[in-house]
Amino acid sequence: MRMIDLIEKKQMGQALTQDEIQYIVTNFTNETIPNYQMAAFMMSVYFQGMSKEEAGWLTMAMAESGDQMDLSAIEGVKVDKHSTGGVGDTTTIILAPLVAACGVPVAKMSGRGLGHTGGTIDKLEAIPGFHTEVPVEDFIKLVNKNKLAVVGQTGNLTPADKKMYALRDVTSTVQSIPLIASSIMSKKIAAGADAIVLDVKVGDGAFMKNVDQARELAQTMVSIGQVVGRQVLAVISDMSQPLGRAVGNALEIQEAIDTLKGHGPQDLTDLCLVLGSQMLIAAGAADNLEVGKAMLQAKIDDGSALAKFKDFVQAQGGNPAVADDPSLLPQAKYKIEVPAPQAGYVTDWVAHDIGVAANLLGAGRNTLDDVIDPAVGLMVQAKIGDYVDQGQSLATIYADREQVDDVIEKILAAVTLGEAVKQPTLIIDTIGHV
Amino acid sequence: MRMIDLIEKKQMGQALTQDEIQYIVTNFTNETIPNYQMAAFMMSVYFQGMSKEEAGWLTMAMAESGDQMDLSAIEGVKVDKHSTGGVGDTTTIILAPLVAACGVPVAKMSGRGLGHTGGTIDKLEAIPGFHTEVPVEDFIKLVNKNKLAVVGQTGNLTPADKKMYALRDVTSTVQSIPLIASSIMSKKIAAGADAIVLDVKVGDGAFMKNVDQARELAQTMVSIGQVVGRQVLAVISDMSQPLGRAVGNALEIQEAIDTLKGHGPQDLTDLCLVLGSQMLIAAGAADNLEVGKAMLQAKIDDGSALAKFKDFVQAQGGNPAVADDPSLLPQAKYKIEVPAPQAGYVTDWVAHDIGVAANLLGAGRNTLDDVIDPAVGLMVQAKIGDYVDQGQSLATIYADREQVDDVIEKILAAVTLGEAVKQPTLIIDTIGHV
Repeated sequence: MRMIDLIEKKQMGQALTQDEIQYIVTNFTNETIPNYQMAAFMMSVYFQGMSKEEAGWLTMAMAESGDQMDLSAIEGVKVDKHSTGGVGDTTTIILAPLVAACGVPVAKMSGRGLGHTGGTIDKLEAIPGFHTEVPVEDFIKLVNKNKLAVVGQTGNLTPADKKMYALRDVTSTVQSIPLIASSIMSKKIAAGADAIVLDVKVGDGAFMKNVDQARELAQTMVSIGQVVGRQVLAVISDMSQPLGRAVGNALEIQEAIDTLKGHGPQDLTDLCLVLGSQMLIAAGAADNLEVGKAMLQAKIDDGSALAKFKDFVQAQGGNPAVADDPSLLPQAKYKIEVPAPQAGYVTDWVAHDIGVAANLLGAGRNTLDDVIDPAVGLMVQAKIGDYVDQGQSLATIYADREQVDDVIEKILAAVTLGEAVKQPTLIIDTIGHV
Repeated sequence: MRMIDLIEKKQMGQALTQDEIQYIVTNFTNETIPNYQMAAFMMSVYFQGMSKEEAGWLTMAMAESGDQMDLSAIEGVKVDKHSTGGVGDTTTIILAPLVAACGVPVAKMSGRGLGHTGGTIDKLEAIPGFHTEVPVEDFIKLVNKNKLAVVGQTGNLTPADKKMYALRDVTSTVQSIPLIASSIMSKKIAAGADAIVLDVKVGDGAFMKNVDQARELAQTMVSIGQVVGRQVLAVISDMSQPLGRAVGNALEIQEAIDTLKGHGPQDLTDLCLVLGSQMLIAAGAADNLEVGKAMLQAKIDDGSALAKFKDFVQAQGGNPAVADDPSLLPQAKYKIEVPAPQAGYVTDWVAHDIGVAANLLGAGRNTLDDVIDPAVGLMVQAKIGDYVDQGQSLATIYADREQVDDVIEKILAAVTLGEAVKQPTLIIDTIGHV
C-alpha cells in the first residue's frame, strides 16, 4: 500500500477501505507517513468528505493508536458526555452527580487545555483540597463505591488524534466534519465509554457557527456510533450567549451547586435535564426524555443530587462544606458592576467576547504554562430578551485587580441593546433517539 | 501575513493577491513555509483552481525564484517550444534547424531527466562528438552566429518549481492545471523565452488523458502569457500512438534527419510544420499558419534546413557527416522483427507501453545515475489504421542483447489488431491566434 495512492483515491471522491484507513493512521502515528502527505490527505477529506463507515473505521483506528482505558471492572453502562465547547459551560459538574444519583456510573476523564476559562478539571480544583490526579485502580474503586469520579487524563490516549489535530491546526483542516467527529469519538472510546452523549453548541461562542453544520456533526457522530457499536445521542444547543450566568472557575462551581439545589439559571438547568436524560436513556435507565427528566428533577427536589455532589467532593479530597457555604470557595478581591450605558432590551451578547473578557481577568490559560486564577470571572446579569434601565448592571466583574477598564470595554462591546426580542431557543434539537 | 490564512482563503475558493502569492513562493523556497502547509495549499489549489491572474503571478514568482537567463544579447524574438511529453517525440531536433533556417533565433536550453527514452540533450549526444555543456557566453555567440544552439541547463533556474514539483509528486497534486501551467511557463521564462509555443499531447502516452484537459491546460498557458506579457501559442496533438516511427535516441536522430530531408513520417512532418509555423508567427516572421508552413516547406525542399542542421552539429562539436551517412550513428548489435500474430488492422497502440519497451532495452533512465544506450530502441512499422498480414512486422527492435522476449511480449501486449479503423486525427486544435 502507498500513501500517494490513498491520497489520490480520496481526492477522486472514492471511499477508502478499513485496511487503508488503518494503514494511514498506524503509519502516520509511527511517523512513516510524513506530515506533508497527511496534510494533503486531510485537505482531500475536507473537500470530499467520508462515508459513515470510513469515519467509523478512522475513529477506531485512532482510538486504538495508543493506550485504552479498561473500565470493565465498573458495573453498568459507562456513559460519557462531551460538549463541543462554549462559554460558561458548567454542565459536566452538574450532570455527573445528578446522573450518578440515579444509579448510573459516571467515570469521567477530563482535560485542562487552553480556553477562556479552565477545563472541567480546573473548575473542580477551585474547590479547596479537591484533587484529580488519581491512579486508574483508585478511579475505578471510586466509581464502584460512589458511582462517580472525575479525574485528569492519564496514559498515552489517542496519539494519532494528537498528531492529527496539531497538523490540522496549521493546515486549515480543523473544519472538516468527519475529522472533528472521529477526533471526539476516538478520545471517548479510548477513555472507555460504552455510550456517548454529545452537546453540540451552535453560535458565535461555539465551534459550529450554524445549525446545519451542528446537525451534520451530530448526525456523523451518531452514524459513527452505529459503525463502532456505541450508542450516541446528541443535543444541539444554543451558544449565542453564555450558558447560565457564571463565567469563571469558582463562579461556575457556585452556579453548579445552585443548580443542584434547584435554583440555578433556567437555561443551564434545562440543558442539564435534557443531557442528563439522554445519559439515562443511553445507560438503559430511562425510556424517553420525559421519564428521564422526571427522574433527574426528583433527585434535585429530594436533595440526593446535592448529597451525591458532597460525597464526590469528599471522596476526591475536597471540602464538601462548599456546598452549603459559598464563602469557602476562592473569593475575588474586587466586585465591579458594568452599568448599561442606556435603557433597552439585550438583543445580543457576543459570547466569544465574554469568554475573552473572563480570560483578560486570568480565568483561563493562553499557554500551557499559565496559572489560572480560580476566583476571577464574571456573572452575566442580563441575558438576551431581558430589559435593563440605564445604569442597571449588565454584568458583574470578579477581579483580583482594581483597574478593569479593558474588561468593561470588552463587555460593553459584546452587548447590544435595542427593541424587545424573544429569548433564543436553547434546545434546538435532540438527535439519535425517538 | 500567515500561511494558514492563505491556505484557508484558497480553500474557501477566494483569489489570492499578487503579494500573497509572492509571499508563498518566496517563503516556501527559503523553507520558512514547511512542506505540510504547502501540501495543504496545493491540494486546495487542486480543488479550487486559480484565476488567470493568480496563475500568472505564480508563474512570475517562480521564474524569479532563482537565476534567470539574460538573452538580450541575442537579436530578435526568442521563441521557445515546449512539449508536455510523449513517446517518440523528436520534434525539437527537427524544429530547431527548420525555424533557424527561416532566420528566427533558436536559443534552447533543454533537460535530460527521466523517461522512456532520453531527453533532447541525450538524443543529440547520440551524434558522435556532439557536446551540450556550453558556457552561457558561448551559447549566445553560437546563436548569434548560426541562429541556433541547443545546450544543457546551467545555473539554479526556478528552485521554487523544483521544490514544488518534488512535493506535488508525493502528495497527488501533480494533476492541477494551474500548477502544471505555471511550472512549465516559469521554466521557459527563467530560460529567457520571449514567446512560447506549446505542444500539448493528448492520449494514453501523454500527461493529459483527454482533449478537454489538454484544451484547459493550453488556454491556461495562453492566459498566463497575457498576464506576464509573453505570447503563447499552442497545438493540441494526438499521442494515442507513438509520434513518427522511431523510439530511441540514435533512431530518433536518424528520423529527424530524414524529416529534414523531406522524407520523414507524415505525422511527425505535419506536426513540425504546424509547431514551426507557430514559432514563426510568435517571432513575427509569418502572419498565419499557411504562410508559415509554406516558408518551412521551402526550407526543406531547397536543402537549407538540412544544411542548418549540419552547421548546428558541427558548431557543437558533432560530426555533420551523420546527416548523409546513417551508419556513423551508434548502431545496435541486434535487429529483431516483431511479427503480427494474426492478420488485421492496427486499431490501437498503447503508446505508454511502447515507451516502456524502449526503456527495457536501455533507451532511457530510471534513476538519475543510469547510463543511456544511444543505439537501442524500436521502430514502429505499422501504425493505427495500417493493415498487416499474419507474420508481417509490427515493429523492429534494435537491441544490444540477443534475448528480447520481454520486449516482444510488451510490444505485442500494447497492440490491438481488428477491423479497419481510420487513422487518428493528429492535430486536434491550435490555440492562441486566429
